[in-house]
Amino acid sequence: MIDYNPKDWFTFIFRIHKADTVRKLMPMIVAICLYSALVAWLETAVWKLSDDSRVKNISLLHSLLGFVISLLLAFRSNSAYDRWWEGRKLWGALVNNSRNLALRMNALLPEGDRDSREFFRTMIPNYAFALKNHLRDQAKAEEFVAGGGVEFNHLDTARHVPNQIAAHLMRRAYSLQKQGVLTGEQLLSINPELQSFTDICGACERIRNTPIPFSYSVFLKKFIFFYVMTLPFGLAFSLGWFVIPAMAFIFYVLASMELIAEEIENPFGIDANDLPTERISGNIRRHVEEIL
Amino acid sequence: MIDYNPKDWFTFIFRIHKADTVRKLMPMIVAICLYSALVAWLETAVWKLSDDSRVKNISLLHSLLGFVISLLLAFRSNSAYDRWWEGRKLWGALVNNSRNLALRMNALLPEGDRDSREFFRTMIPNYAFALKNHLRDQAKAEEFVAGGGVEFNHLDTARHVPNQIAAHLMRRAYSLQKQGVLTGEQLLSINPELQSFTDICGACERIRNTPIPFSYSVFLKKFIFFYVMTLPFGLAFSLGWFVIPAMAFIFYVLASMELIAEEIENPFGIDANDLPTERISGNIRRHVEEIL
Amino acid sequence: MIDYNPKDWFTFIFRIHKADTVRKLMPMIVAICLYSALVAWLETAVWKLSDDSRVKNISLLHSLLGFVISLLLAFRSNSAYDRWWEGRKLWGALVNNSRNLALRMNALLPEGDRDSREFFRTMIPNYAFALKNHLRDQAKAEEFVAGGGVEFNHLDTARHVPNQIAAHLMRRAYSLQKQGVLTGEQLLSINPELQSFTDICGACERIRNTPIPFSYSVFLKKFIFFYVMTLPFGLAFSLGWFVIPAMAFIFYVLASMELIAEEIENPFGIDANDLPTERISGNIRRHVEEIL
Amino acid sequence: MIDYNPKDWFTFIFRIHKADTVRKLMPMIVAICLYSALVAWLETAVWKLSDDSRVKNISLLHSLLGFVISLLLAFRSNSAYDRWWEGRKLWGALVNNSRNLALRMNALLPEGDRDSREFFRTMIPNYAFALKNHLRDQAKAEEFVAGGGVEFNHLDTARHVPNQIAAHLMRRAYSLQKQGVLTGEQLLSINPELQSFTDICGACERIRNTPIPFSYSVFLKKFIFFYVMTLPFGLAFSLGWFVIPAMAFIFYVLASMELIAEEIENPFGIDANDLPTERISGNIRRHVEEIL
Amino acid sequence: MIDYNPKDWFTFIFRIHKADTVRKLMPMIVAICLYSALVAWLETAVWKLSDDSRVKNISLLHSLLGFVISLLLAFRSNSAYDRWWEGRKLWGALVNNSRNLALRMNALLPEGDRDSREFFRTMIPNYAFALKNHLRDQAKAEEFVAGGGVEFNHLDTARHVPNQIAAHLMRRAYSLQKQGVLTGEQLLSINPELQSFTDICGACERIRNTPIPFSYSVFLKKFIFFYVMTLPFGLAFSLGWFVIPAMAFIFYVLASMELIAEEIENPFGIDANDLPTERISGNIRRHVEEIL
Repeated sequence: MIDYNPKDWFTFIFRIHKADTVRKLMPMIVAICLYSALVAWLETAVWKLSDDSRVKNISLLHSLLGFVISLLLAFRSNSAYDRWWEGRKLWGALVNNSRNLALRMNALLPEGDRDSREFFRTMIPNYAFALKNHLRDQAKAEEFVAGGGVEFNHLDTARHVPNQIAAHLMRRAYSLQKQGVLTGEQLLSINPELQSFTDICGACERIRNTPIPFSYSVFLKKFIFFYVMTLPFGLAFSLGWFVIPAMAFIFYVLASMELIAEEIENPFGIDANDLPTERISGNIRRHVEEIL
Repeated sequence: MIDYNPKDWFTFIFRIHKADTVRKLMPMIVAICLYSALVAWLETAVWKLSDDSRVKNISLLHSLLGFVISLLLAFRSNSAYDRWWEGRKLWGALVNNSRNLALRMNALLPEGDRDSREFFRTMIPNYAFALKNHLRDQAKAEEFVAGGGVEFNHLDTARHVPNQIAAHLMRRAYSLQKQGVLTGEQLLSINPELQSFTDICGACERIRNTPIPFSYSVFLKKFIFFYVMTLPFGLAFSLGWFVIPAMAFIFYVLASMELIAEEIENPFGIDANDLPTERISGNIRRHVEEIL
Repeated sequence: MIDYNPKDWFTFIFRIHKADTVRKLMPMIVAICLYSALVAWLETAVWKLSDDSRVKNISLLHSLLGFVISLLLAFRSNSAYDRWWEGRKLWGALVNNSRNLALRMNALLPEGDRDSREFFRTMIPNYAFALKNHLRDQAKAEEFVAGGGVEFNHLDTARHVPNQIAAHLMRRAYSLQKQGVLTGEQLLSINPELQSFTDICGACERIRNTPIPFSYSVFLKKFIFFYVMTLPFGLAFSLGWFVIPAMAFIFYVLASMELIAEEIENPFGIDANDLPTERISGNIRRHVEEIL
Repeated sequence: MIDYNPKDWFTFIFRIHKADTVRKLMPMIVAICLYSALVAWLETAVWKLSDDSRVKNISLLHSLLGFVISLLLAFRSNSAYDRWWEGRKLWGALVNNSRNLALRMNALLPEGDRDSREFFRTMIPNYAFALKNHLRDQAKAEEFVAGGGVEFNHLDTARHVPNQIAAHLMRRAYSLQKQGVLTGEQLLSINPELQSFTDICGACERIRNTPIPFSYSVFLKKFIFFYVMTLPFGLAFSLGWFVIPAMAFIFYVLASMELIAEEIENPFGIDANDLPTERISGNIRRHVEEIL
Repeated sequence: MIDYNPKDWFTFIFRIHKADTVRKLMPMIVAICLYSALVAWLETAVWKLSDDSRVKNISLLHSLLGFVISLLLAFRSNSAYDRWWEGRKLWGALVNNSRNLALRMNALLPEGDRDSREFFRTMIPNYAFALKNHLRDQAKAEEFVAGGGVEFNHLDTARHVPNQIAAHLMRRAYSLQKQGVLTGEQLLSINPELQSFTDICGACERIRNTPIPFSYSVFLKKFIFFYVMTLPFGLAFSLGWFVIPAMAFIFYVLASMELIAEEIENPFGIDANDLPTERISGNIRRHVEEIL
């Protein structure tokens, strides 16, 4: 994720950032300009349409449908943003959860139980790193910190890594109770935190694995394509050569909305708009080590 | 569900996929084209309307109502998508729930209690398969795995199958406590998972059994129908023969939105847009077997 | 509730169902047609307005406000639908809750405790029937099934019936614990179910007793009325006699949206769009009897 | 709150109710009419604008911005309604909570413990009355019912009254456990209810104390004002004297939406649209007395 | 936060408050006026465009896109408001939580345990102050009140201050249980409150650290800029010199919506629209001291 100051208008307007949709759409925008120029040339120089040609009324169609396309794109932006924000909430919940479990274990474990303290101090942040890498389909063994009796040759990267760490945490918590270090009620008091790790992991997987329904995706792309392709016929009639910058602007707006939605819909990658899961995982490690 | 790459515009625009609404609407689109041609022929060749005929103002009506129809279709898409996404969340919760219960039983059950371990290893995934089939109104006894003392001749497919499996799980958990394998607090710590199975099942049934209110469905279809049927009268006047592709495009857009909403509103079937409940059930079995 | 196949367009468009808004609005539509005809006649035959009369610009007003009225009706539809769907969720929760309590009591109660089993087998479904009738302001004593030591001459129909059944359930659960049949932890594990009955009842009462704020209701009706009454003046000028079907169509659309919203806002009655609380209650009885 | 039948259109349209926005806006509407008449007179009689004056194009501005103002008012209505509905949910939750606590105490307390029963029978409804008055910044000592060992000279109306009653409830519950009347698990089973009183109180205070952000309120009022003030210049040109009723209608619609939003945003007062907290408190007393 | 009476229209319209967007936008509005004047001068005096110049049709573009920009700004307002309101809810939850914990500790702690009572009386409000300052990236040691055995030289302002206070609270609660002052069940009954502090802190940090996705911010600013820059070309043709106030008004509306969204998106600062976290923290201290 890029850190930025949302109030700095000037840079936003004139600098073309690496992640800016202008840059990504540039080849398409050029193509649209050429296409519009061709249509304008055909209409004015080749077909020499008269002023009362019915071609000018084609715009009627586009204003009827302009409404539908705007609402569809708003719906698309909304649902993509909701996923992005849900992803952010989940990682926020992971932070809270890790802190709460660390705070509780700090209060519950005897001062002298160095081994258990080290276990939780290393394993809680390991979960965050495991989840981050799992969501990016990568395995970075070097990010794990061993400790508290768990060696990382125990982890099997072919299987679900976060689940294995969750299993370690769960087993340790229940075995502390069986050994009498924790009472039954104390075990119950850390129950929500233990459960929450896997819930967060599952919810992130859900967001990552489920783009919006196939039919919407197809329909929206076809709709934008035909809308933009037929638009210059009506506009060139009214605007003449001005149709070229006009089409560039319209295409930039419509395609940007779809493009941004596609990007933020899966917020766990390494794009400019993705969530800073790397930094959050680091923060979790730092805070947990401060506490325990 | 179809796996697809949402960024691959080219294929989306030019390939007509089996689940594409273009394919499903094709006969209707052809009919609309013929109808529009008829109207255009009547207006230009038969009735020979003069340029200041009031017929051209019929479009006024359609732009006044264009707004309402767009908002209605947006509302329809939204509510259908919300159901689809709620369905996805429920199956995500089923995954989390199954994993959490497996992780807990793994930590709680004595290493040597092979029978109980086998019971949960088989019954937790069986619940997912039972729910998947129950939501599709089918019974596939071959997908169940027997184990841990439950034979599937015990299951009565005429009765509610997921409930029977939930009853097995519930009974086993309470009987483990009565035998002293689990303490009271340990039982309480698995309580949310035990309860959640039936909650998920009920919520899925709710989505499957409740389409949007009857009156909306009737009203929206009547509205689209009359809107599309009266539209060519105004448009043919302004567009001449261009009315034919224009009507095809407008009809494609409006009808697609209703069609997609109808499809995704019940996400538990086997359509292209439906949720991959089959694959999710398989994943649950795989993960639970890894854990227990 | 009417069961219907949402994909059956043909019937929806051409059949006029008993619950169709077309039927309910028919007298009003006829009145609007007569009124529009009167306006058209006045404008063309009596006042003989010239082509550049300012009357034609009245439509400006209606297109400025067309937007506001559409958004208001969309807001109205949305909030009414949200209540309907919340009502559906509550009854879904009642199903889940009843099933979960039955599953738990089945696992917890000793096989031989026939009296307690019969108590829960009869009282859990009785709650659903009591709630259904309570929400319809009716008392149907014949729908209750006595059993497990509760006679229905104990129920006082002048007082809040669902509360009395909830009191029976609550009392029995706590007395089972006092007798030592349930342990403290087992009692806690059925706590969410015991609490949920009353929560669901209260939420249903809230939906039934609270229509949208009075001022919105008044404002929206006044707005629709004046909008529709002034519309023909502008339209008749542009459309001539075509104003009659146009006004019928516009009125049908606007009034239907308000009418449907009014109907589904309170989903617990016996209208065509209301929730099938009767059937759901029956299902609860069937499923609980299967389980216990 | 006014009880009304939402299906009674006739009365709504022709009766001008005390709470109707028409009545409240009447002076402003008259002023707008005079202002529009002045503008129309200036344009037609004084300035004698020709037909191709650029003044007629001022309407362009208003149709460009008509969209934004409509969406803003829709956003305003939505957020105000959400608060109103959240307030209603909170009072619904208070009803449920009071009932549940009463049902539980009825089952838990020994039949003979008259003092404790009286305590809960009086204090649970007292909380509702205290909250109602607290939200209206009033203190009505006469609405409290003393009982169960609490005298109301103990209440200090200068301090937070609902908190004091919650403190009584909390203290009594824990002291019943300390005395051995309730077991630890029974205490836990009433824990959600005890906590919920204060949560509801805090959420109501939040709604009452936080209107929408200051900047929105200023911006929206300025926007409506300038929009309405400039509108007649364009409209008078096209509509002549018809501009007077047109402006009255447009102003009525826009201002009503803002006015209703202002009214329902804080739903705990005694306006026509406010929630019937008086009646709800009474119902809580009646139901709790039926139960305990 | 500014306290204001939302019904006082007059002041809102004519007074230009310090936080009013009019004031902040004034330099830009002046610039836009000059730019529009330049365009109008060019079109009328320099280029002397004829009446059928295609330049007048440029407005077509702006009405096509006016829709998209309005919906985008509505989406932006909505999501910014949602964050603001979520922030308000979180601080409301902190109030409830602090009150509930104080009420419970008051009921649970022996009357004579002055030290523990003082501990909670000081530390619960300290958490609110710590969180307020943490969210503003400041450390105000003077706002803390020492007591109950915690000196503030123990707090390390370089580390996460709210976490340190939460650690104190957690440790004290568990140590009270270990000492036998609280039973296991009593500990469980305060468990939700203990957990909630850190959850609220994490959620506030999430809101503060995550503005809307970078791409939306860039796109929206670019879109507004080009929209406003190209608009005078079409408008100056139709409106002549009237284009100057028209552009000022349009720019004021569009830019205000973006500006307000930017301001309320992070509600924890000290701007006019920010939440009154200072006052809320003070209220928490006052209420907790009343209770304990």
